[in-house]
Amino acid sequence: MTAVDLVALGEVMLRLDPGEGRVRTARSFSVWEGGGEYNVSRALRRCFGLRTAIVTALADNEVGRLVEDLMLAGGVDTSHVTWLPYDGIGREVRNGLNFVERGFGVRAPLGVSDRGNTAIAQLRPSDVDWDALFGGGVRWLHTGGILAGLSDTTPDLIEAAIDAAHRHGATVSYDLNYRASLWHGRGGRERAQEVNRRLLSGVDVLFGVPTEAPVSAATFAGHVDDLVKEFPRLRVVATTLRRVHSTNVHDWGAIVWRDGEIAESRMREGLAVLDRIGGGDGFASGLIYGLLTGLDLSLAVEYGVAHGALAMTTPGDTSMATLAEVAALATTAVADVSR
Amino acid sequence: MTAVDLVALGEVMLRLDPGEGRVRTARSFSVWEGGGEYNVSRALRRCFGLRTAIVTALADNEVGRLVEDLMLAGGVDTSHVTWLPYDGIGREVRNGLNFVERGFGVRAPLGVSDRGNTAIAQLRPSDVDWDALFGGGVRWLHTGGILAGLSDTTPDLIEAAIDAAHRHGATVSYDLNYRASLWHGRGGRERAQEVNRRLLSGVDVLFGVPTEAPVSAATFAGHVDDLVKEFPRLRVVATTLRRVHSTNVHDWGAIVWRDGEIAESRMREGLAVLDRIGGGDGFASGLIYGLLTGLDLSLAVEYGVAHGALAMTTPGDTSMATLAEVAALATTAVADVSR
Amino acid sequence: MTAVDLVALGEVMLRLDPGEGRVRTARSFSVWEGGGEYNVSRALRRCFGLRTAIVTALADNEVGRLVEDLMLAGGVDTSHVTWLPYDGIGREVRNGLNFVERGFGVRAPLGVSDRGNTAIAQLRPSDVDWDALFGGGVRWLHTGGILAGLSDTTPDLIEAAIDAAHRHGATVSYDLNYRASLWHGRGGRERAQEVNRRLLSGVDVLFGVPTEAPVSAATFAGHVDDLVKEFPRLRVVATTLRRVHSTNVHDWGAIVWRDGEIAESRMREGLAVLDRIGGGDGFASGLIYGLLTGLDLSLAVEYGVAHGALAMTTPGDTSMATLAEVAALATTAVADVSR
Amino acid sequence: MTAVDLVALGEVMLRLDPGEGRVRTARSFSVWEGGGEYNVSRALRRCFGLRTAIVTALADNEVGRLVEDLMLAGGVDTSHVTWLPYDGIGREVRNGLNFVERGFGVRAPLGVSDRGNTAIAQLRPSDVDWDALFGGGVRWLHTGGILAGLSDTTPDLIEAAIDAAHRHGATVSYDLNYRASLWHGRGGRERAQEVNRRLLSGVDVLFGVPTEAPVSAATFAGHVDDLVKEFPRLRVVATTLRRVHSTNVHDWGAIVWRDGEIAESRMREGLAVLDRIGGGDGFASGLIYGLLTGLDLSLAVEYGVAHGALAMTTPGDTSMATLAEVAALATTAVADVSR
Amino acid sequence: MTAVDLVALGEVMLRLDPGEGRVRTARSFSVWEGGGEYNVSRALRRCFGLRTAIVTALADNEVGRLVEDLMLAGGVDTSHVTWLPYDGIGREVRNGLNFVERGFGVRAPLGVSDRGNTAIAQLRPSDVDWDALFGGGVRWLHTGGILAGLSDTTPDLIEAAIDAAHRHGATVSYDLNYRASLWHGRGGRERAQEVNRRLLSGVDVLFGVPTEAPVSAATFAGHVDDLVKEFPRLRVVATTLRRVHSTNVHDWGAIVWRDGEIAESRMREGLAVLDRIGGGDGFASGLIYGLLTGLDLSLAVEYGVAHGALAMTTPGDTSMATLAEVAALATTAVADVSR
Amino acid sequence: MTAVDLVALGEVMLRLDPGEGRVRTARSFSVWEGGGEYNVSRALRRCFGLRTAIVTALADNEVGRLVEDLMLAGGVDTSHVTWLPYDGIGREVRNGLNFVERGFGVRAPLGVSDRGNTAIAQLRPSDVDWDALFGGGVRWLHTGGILAGLSDTTPDLIEAAIDAAHRHGATVSYDLNYRASLWHGRGGRERAQEVNRRLLSGVDVLFGVPTEAPVSAATFAGHVDDLVKEFPRLRVVATTLRRVHSTNVHDWGAIVWRDGEIAESRMREGLAVLDRIGGGDGFASGLIYGLLTGLDLSLAVEYGVAHGALAMTTPGDTSMATLAEVAALATTAVADVSR
Repeated sequence: MTAVDLVALGEVMLRLDPGEGRVRTARSFSVWEGGGEYNVSRALRRCFGLRTAIVTALADNEVGRLVEDLMLAGGVDTSHVTWLPYDGIGREVRNGLNFVERGFGVRAPLGVSDRGNTAIAQLRPSDVDWDALFGGGVRWLHTGGILAGLSDTTPDLIEAAIDAAHRHGATVSYDLNYRASLWHGRGGRERAQEVNRRLLSGVDVLFGVPTEAPVSAATFAGHVDDLVKEFPRLRVVATTLRRVHSTNVHDWGAIVWRDGEIAESRMREGLAVLDRIGGGDGFASGLIYGLLTGLDLSLAVEYGVAHGALAMTTPGDTSMATLAEVAALATTAVADVSR
Repeated sequence: MTAVDLVALGEVMLRLDPGEGRVRTARSFSVWEGGGEYNVSRALRRCFGLRTAIVTALADNEVGRLVEDLMLAGGVDTSHVTWLPYDGIGREVRNGLNFVERGFGVRAPLGVSDRGNTAIAQLRPSDVDWDALFGGGVRWLHTGGILAGLSDTTPDLIEAAIDAAHRHGATVSYDLNYRASLWHGRGGRERAQEVNRRLLSGVDVLFGVPTEAPVSAATFAGHVDDLVKEFPRLRVVATTLRRVHSTNVHDWGAIVWRDGEIAESRMREGLAVLDRIGGGDGFASGLIYGLLTGLDLSLAVEYGVAHGALAMTTPGDTSMATLAEVAALATTAVADVSR
Repeated sequence: MTAVDLVALGEVMLRLDPGEGRVRTARSFSVWEGGGEYNVSRALRRCFGLRTAIVTALADNEVGRLVEDLMLAGGVDTSHVTWLPYDGIGREVRNGLNFVERGFGVRAPLGVSDRGNTAIAQLRPSDVDWDALFGGGVRWLHTGGILAGLSDTTPDLIEAAIDAAHRHGATVSYDLNYRASLWHGRGGRERAQEVNRRLLSGVDVLFGVPTEAPVSAATFAGHVDDLVKEFPRLRVVATTLRRVHSTNVHDWGAIVWRDGEIAESRMREGLAVLDRIGGGDGFASGLIYGLLTGLDLSLAVEYGVAHGALAMTTPGDTSMATLAEVAALATTAVADVSR
Repeated sequence: MTAVDLVALGEVMLRLDPGEGRVRTARSFSVWEGGGEYNVSRALRRCFGLRTAIVTALADNEVGRLVEDLMLAGGVDTSHVTWLPYDGIGREVRNGLNFVERGFGVRAPLGVSDRGNTAIAQLRPSDVDWDALFGGGVRWLHTGGILAGLSDTTPDLIEAAIDAAHRHGATVSYDLNYRASLWHGRGGRERAQEVNRRLLSGVDVLFGVPTEAPVSAATFAGHVDDLVKEFPRLRVVATTLRRVHSTNVHDWGAIVWRDGEIAESRMREGLAVLDRIGGGDGFASGLIYGLLTGLDLSLAVEYGVAHGALAMTTPGDTSMATLAEVAALATTAVADVSR
Repeated sequence: MTAVDLVALGEVMLRLDPGEGRVRTARSFSVWEGGGEYNVSRALRRCFGLRTAIVTALADNEVGRLVEDLMLAGGVDTSHVTWLPYDGIGREVRNGLNFVERGFGVRAPLGVSDRGNTAIAQLRPSDVDWDALFGGGVRWLHTGGILAGLSDTTPDLIEAAIDAAHRHGATVSYDLNYRASLWHGRGGRERAQEVNRRLLSGVDVLFGVPTEAPVSAATFAGHVDDLVKEFPRLRVVATTLRRVHSTNVHDWGAIVWRDGEIAESRMREGLAVLDRIGGGDGFASGLIYGLLTGLDLSLAVEYGVAHGALAMTTPGDTSMATLAEVAALATTAVADVSR
Repeated sequence: MTAVDLVALGEVMLRLDPGEGRVRTARSFSVWEGGGEYNVSRALRRCFGLRTAIVTALADNEVGRLVEDLMLAGGVDTSHVTWLPYDGIGREVRNGLNFVERGFGVRAPLGVSDRGNTAIAQLRPSDVDWDALFGGGVRWLHTGGILAGLSDTTPDLIEAAIDAAHRHGATVSYDLNYRASLWHGRGGRERAQEVNRRLLSGVDVLFGVPTEAPVSAATFAGHVDDLVKEFPRLRVVATTLRRVHSTNVHDWGAIVWRDGEIAESRMREGLAVLDRIGGGDGFASGLIYGLLTGLDLSLAVEYGVAHGALAMTTPGDTSMATLAEVAALATTAVADVSR
């Protein structure tokens, strides 16, 4: 594999989107691809112009090939996708599906993910040639807590990836992304924390630390101090700040700690939201871009917030923004037509 | 439950249909509901005007509720649907999905069913109150080999249903509908035959006996004789005759044996086909209508063939035809505008 | 007929909806079914889980059958629909059509109903077997002023239904729903009031009493006192309070009187509205649900307001909400994603 | 009014088209405008480049304005449309609607026209200033039996138009277009013939003489002789010849008599048909173009047949063909790509 | 040509609109026609009921014919369109295309116009018979700075039109509409001003004078004084006032000077905007309507603002509003449903 | 650049497709990417699983980025695309657009390409680092006569590419693909032949030799002999044989000469065609696959014909077929469902 800037490790699902209607009464669905870890990789490629790849697994059937078709449009290197043979019915292996409606006003977004028994949940660390992957020159590995929660074996997969990243000098980022449904019946939040704790010792950059908006810099710094005591490898800890007034109107910002320094974005009040799915991943990719390209931390966090804001103005999980738009929005508050 | 004419027992899936395109490159899907056994029940209600019901199980999530929304439009009594709680991710129970493209010309229809670990595959005989169901007055039970192949427990479910039908004097029909994928890794065709053999002893009306078109009445009769020797309860044995010239052009007919009598439909040559999925179920429902309402066998088989032909002129698995159209087509060969 | 919780009596129209565009320049329309009285019955079935039915009439043509297809998806018992033979051109009998655009911002919703000479306008009291209908066990009859205004004969129909409800112990609700167009050229508001006055003597629960938002509890109570003096049977009088800031932003609440008790909902200020058609019916069904299931009046009115609010977040006249959503929104103000 | 080549007199309806599906299960409709007489005027303008106008009436509501929007795109002069005030409900006056599905294979096209009590059915001869209309210089008037059957007053309207045409030297064409539904309950075919007989005495060019394909030139000539004896004004009598193999495969041709001369088109066997509605009007407009521009009769009939064939390759009632395409197809049998 | 109220001179492009998505990731586009000068002519015809025409040029290919189809629906007289033969590839002459997305929230509208080498850019003054055009009786000529910037020859075209308007007593309006892209590489803003200065000496009514919102009447008057000194023919100078809070929320108003009198509209704060393209043209047409029909200046400016506001509530460049809606909104602030 | 199997050199246009309707009356378009040379590269990647790249140029605007989005989904390496800055209006450089309708029955496919002054027409040989491109290891270069005809400079570009291919040992294929419109006004067919003659001396594999179906092997061999005399480098000469019965029914086959050996495919009679655009490119890619992977010539030609046939069963210029489907169809004549 040629050198890439970032590799994401995670599941890529087919998102089925009923548009302005509801899943339960839909007669048609638009489809997109999406996945918490993947979305970061895709955005860094298509919006920010870096070279990125995805490590994942798919069942080799028409649905998996559709996900591939969508990932190709995402520009992400797909040569590290593991294809598992399909059994013709989905008893042994499947592809993940995610039916999500965007909501409106007082009606919240609503999703039902159908990702039991999927290909990546069965991937073993030995199925991937980690040294070949990272040996080609990888600057960054991004993964997270969604993958960690998919099955009993995915934490081993993540651990293997982190170890390889360490061997080859790549930075490791991890998005906690806690989803109760993933841990339901498997030990709940306690088990999730146990797994995360095991993995965080190898993490350099941490996203998704739970906070309530608003949070003061001091409070956040205190919270990070506790984290760093337990996980001394951590160099960056970040979280988005979101206050939901209605499905389409959020306050939106972020706060980041780096080696003792705190940067807070402006709070974008009354932000118009079309489809919030992927907003957090949009923040993560914008911040990583800033970190990878050496932006000032205060600007990097604005890139993250601006990109997350733009990602929520389009349907689907993934971003359709451009670097020029992110850069412009990071330093302004208002949009106007250009022609 | 009030009296119904027919109860179907089987899985109902969400059909995802990319229209004139392909699943692997689709950006949107229309959705329909479908299932081999269910389609018969739906057609007898909406096309033929009988009262019908479905016995099935669904996972209680947005996808299951969408299937319910579609089944309600199908007019079928849904009060015997068992709703299983969803685990939020689909590890324990799911709803069946069926991605199918219709094909065109030299490109065959292509489907990928994603129905592993679904609700009905886990339904136990004791989950259904069979005597309450049949005690309300049911004239006919329709089920088949697709359900039988879904899991190791579904044959028990079918057996319980057949026993109840016998107790309450209902006719039992069964569509063999052999699908290799269902038996893959579970004993294959041999195991399928073993299961079918166990169930066929309780069957009165058998659909889907494998034949090649063309077949002579004598050959078919000989074949039936062998079957009746093994399964003396059989009173009707039927099969469709299909010769595929291209995806959109079939020859289409059927042959039926009843108590020693043979009826052959006219062969509809060069039949225009839009979406062949559900054609066989269309035949079954048309023939059952004829049997239930006492049509001459020769007319009943034409009803079956005409209804199957009409079901293949519309997208989706299910029929959108009317009884008037079936009756008219059963006795003619050409369509003309009415206005 | 088996026991049902509520029967609605009213016209069901085909709603033709140009989406975000306008009727006058549309090139395609989505279709839904809708009708002031029917919407209540449908919502009680699909959102609130009760058993409901519709008494109406349709012309037996393809449009009528499409309305039936939509009503079936609505889950409402259609066995009391009277089908009138179509004359092939619509001179003698028709189905009601309702072309409505949703509006945007300063552009108001705009509709043109095309419901002259429709089937239900010609239905006679003797066309329905009222005692068979109510004898099966009906808890509630809902009808209203739209039906009363459709033709000179519909008040007789309503009277017959109310009489039967009284005979069989069913509660009677009536939504005034004054529409000037219905009475144009037939005596106007004065004639409408005359007809309503004749019918209100049999009504237990009254919706749609005209008020201006805001209204004080005392003012409303005074207004109800006058009504109860004239119509002593009244036990509940309710009205929604709506202030339109723009087509997509309303203040929305309600006030209810029951046997001297007044309950006011919180006022939902700045409510986001996608399609306001059916909001009032959403309120009525939510309140009736509360009354039928014995909720506290103060909670029942919040159910009504919450359900009406949710009904206005989706396209079409009818609700796509769930009971869980209504219950949650009734006690909170903000929506958030669940996943 | 400036000089126009042809004025059509007839109703223009909104055509609602469910695409490849069926009206009875549709969830959306495309809309077009159409009407037997109007289609001829539109095609002469947009395909053949002549200047044409329509005399019709519409109810002044959003549906009527949508029909106007569509007619404007049709290029037809709309300044002679009479707008009747709408009563808000459609009791007194309406616009005509035409729900038509195209059919497929053995499933015939199926329509339900909803045109009772429409504006043009109430138009009186005195509502139109015929002399102003024809005085501007009109070469041709086209009308027909659909309009004649709409109401008891439309024959008077046609008669007034024909008289005015005669006064101003315009040729009069009339398409018999017998539709049983129009005369149902009003005297049937006998009454239709009586009305037509009254009007045909003023007609120069007659379309739609009933024939069976195939018909010999001699038989047709004999039939025309009888007609001419009764209606000596007739100069041209034409009919299309259509044999329907299936909804999408017709044999298609025409035969025309002019002053004793007979011209037969080649028979286009196995013609592919997408939507047959408007094919006959396509023939009429092509032939009229040939007659107006002085083509040889044998070529004029091929223009008619070619244009009708092209009109049936696109959805909707109206033609989307170009004069160049008609001219090319009139003299060849096969289509090839041009690029 | 018959008398018309207004003739617009300018390019008409095909607008390609990806709906709520983005051009760069679209898989389908809706199409509309549009052009700054044309939009005024279309709105005066379809919304305000005047008779209008367009002088433009198109390449004679399928795209040009599609623009014609759209212009016909716009009701504008197309008899003065010059059709240039297409070379089959677009080297010599083309039709203008305009890919524009509407934006959302913090994401601004974004367009890419593809109008190099188009037909109108090559039109010569002598290609149009100006005296025939204006001799028929034209009250108003509208053109502007977009056309002036299209090529080196278009200013001559405008000059010829203005001269003819003067000869025939028509009022001349001109919208400055400065677009940097048009002048890029051709002298920029300086050259634009030079061209405009040459043309403004013949202009009576000037739109698009650059101002910042808010502006005081005095400041605006002072600005106009300077203009009138240079261009003493000016009788009316108008500009819209727009403050963009987000793509969908603008403050919107206008200020107009006429012969020393100043009229300011109310400022519509927080106006909901769906697609802002065409808002300024909407203002111009509303004001011209007021001037042509003799409304008070203070009402005329409200008509302009109201019409511009309504034009921004629908997709596409052009207005779908009605005169009744404009008149109502001009004197109120809130929209409510009418039914 | 890493090793790739094939590099295509040519223009990639945005295809705008009105579906079953016509360009001239469309209100929406689906978009695809396409280009004669590119289509071969895309199909070898997505259908046949080889690694391929495209050398082309695009204007850097939203349309160009949309073409990139589509090419990424095509899986083709886009790192050799040259992006030219856009001038904001399209005077200096543009992206190619191709409006094409598929036709139906007697109505032929119809296109209008709008590709004057496009980016690749201005690309100079020195803009591409040919040795870097081919030095990475390229087995095959594919280009052709469409590119050669785009501008006066494109033949130089092709020549540079061929020279580089020779230097690095890559096979060179060339598709004559004569399009009259490209040479109109620039010397016509004579000039095209002159250009082709100059380029053919470097070509190994030649597609698109004009022939009429049917052609005998002997005749074809004779024709090739003449070619080889003039261009002795030629090792393979191939042509498709197509006979058009109607837009949707073709006879389809091919004949290939390789070093004196002739292979003819079976003739697929009555092949069903949905969208013929790209059929010839489908043949070329299938044959190249066979040549690259060492299939017998007789099988290779069947792969080409089968792939071309499949490419014509889906909308758009490009293939959506799979290698398994091509391999299956290459040896059979009939399609059947697999499930």
